[in-house]
Amino acid sequence: MKLVRVLHEGRARYGTLCGERVEWLDGSVAEGFTPAEGGAPLSGVKLLAPVEPTKAVCVGLNYMDHIIESNEKVPETPVIFMKPATAVIGPGEAIVYPPQSRRVDYEGELAIVIGKRAKNVPEDAAGEYILGYTCANDVTARDLQPSDGQWTVAKGFDTFLPLGPCVDTDADPANLPIRTILNGRVVQDSNTKHLLFKPRMIVSYISAVMTLEPGDVVLTGTTLGIGPMRSGDRVSVEIGGIGRLDSVVSAP
Amino acid sequence: MKLVRVLHEGRARYGTLCGERVEWLDGSVAEGFTPAEGGAPLSGVKLLAPVEPTKAVCVGLNYMDHIIESNEKVPETPVIFMKPATAVIGPGEAIVYPPQSRRVDYEGELAIVIGKRAKNVPEDAAGEYILGYTCANDVTARDLQPSDGQWTVAKGFDTFLPLGPCVDTDADPANLPIRTILNGRVVQDSNTKHLLFKPRMIVSYISAVMTLEPGDVVLTGTTLGIGPMRSGDRVSVEIGGIGRLDSVVSAP
Repeated sequence: MKLVRVLHEGRARYGTLCGERVEWLDGSVAEGFTPAEGGAPLSGVKLLAPVEPTKAVCVGLNYMDHIIESNEKVPETPVIFMKPATAVIGPGEAIVYPPQSRRVDYEGELAIVIGKRAKNVPEDAAGEYILGYTCANDVTARDLQPSDGQWTVAKGFDTFLPLGPCVDTDADPANLPIRTILNGRVVQDSNTKHLLFKPRMIVSYISAVMTLEPGDVVLTGTTLGIGPMRSGDRVSVEIGGIGRLDSVVSAP
Repeated sequence: MKLVRVLHEGRARYGTLCGERVEWLDGSVAEGFTPAEGGAPLSGVKLLAPVEPTKAVCVGLNYMDHIIESNEKVPETPVIFMKPATAVIGPGEAIVYPPQSRRVDYEGELAIVIGKRAKNVPEDAAGEYILGYTCANDVTARDLQPSDGQWTVAKGFDTFLPLGPCVDTDADPANLPIRTILNGRVVQDSNTKHLLFKPRMIVSYISAVMTLEPGDVVLTGTTLGIGPMRSGDRVSVEIGGIGRLDSVVSAP
């Protein structure tokens, strides 16, 4: 199914996306979902970020083409960093340019959505802890990202984590086309088959460090073609089967 | 006051510490606290981490003596990283040695506790957003901390953020003795007057990046004398006026 979270008549609700309609669900990621009465046309609701993570854990340097573009070595283990939950925005919302930065980049990424609490999960069981997949933009103030220091500031600004439009619980991450589109022009164009570390390995690796909670998201890294955005730009991350995550870029 | 969170008859409750007694409070960090009926002797409750942060934001390299010991340059702006909320443990709990590491270090630190939502707070107003101060141990798997990479794994393990014993809402962070004690021996001994970046500056700086939520904690950095712990060790962080945060170290 395609799980969405929407604002409908002032209330946030979960539902499944069926064509142009949202059918309501009761429950939560932690408790599970059951069908509820009724629904609403997609045109009558506002899509929200499909989950409310307690944290976003991210993998850097996970596509070979991006590693070469970044002049980095191929990592032997995943490079892990975090974005705070306060960075999350939903589809259609604005990425706000911080006044501290002169260069804010898009980074289109496949995001894993955690379905149940995961701690010390072996790789071959990790699939049971994954609810599904969504699109993410690991927005980065490139000029604030030191090559020899911590990335928390550069990647941690409010609005720097667009998520959505849905959690596709049936997606197979082995072979999904992934593109980033800036003002109608394709600027990143790859496939998740080029991921160095695969989603189940990543979930296992992170869960050996920290407990992953239901609804947490794990970003799997970006591909070749990172680049800057300007105020007024429209940016989308599109992953085959999952859908398209649209954002706008606004002035501070 | 000295704000504590305790487990009493199976229920987590806030209270104020008055000598050897806890007087109950109603409310929360976000809503504020009001006195409630009754209390309990400290001996009859279990202290919990005094707040439940959504995130812990940390400053690295913030005491000159520790910068020299780490062979690092003096930073021009605070070096910021995060520990996940899943790392938090309360007083008396066990820091669990991860099997991945052969060297887990203590790092005694003064932690700022945020009292209300803070975004773009000017330094001279930052005090209004600070509920108080507590002791923290920024436990670090030193052998997993790359000098040229991200610190999330090394510092993000479950149990790697002991907090407590209380939030001292009256503490003045300008001049507080801070010590770390390992198996009865003082191994770190400094004073918060040696902080390069001061708490109000730090809160202002971080709030210009990400929204800080009520109950979030900001660790202000550690001082000279970091070193390893072994399974079975007892480690305490003691800050004048606030109190002493005791932990034990356990095998995986």
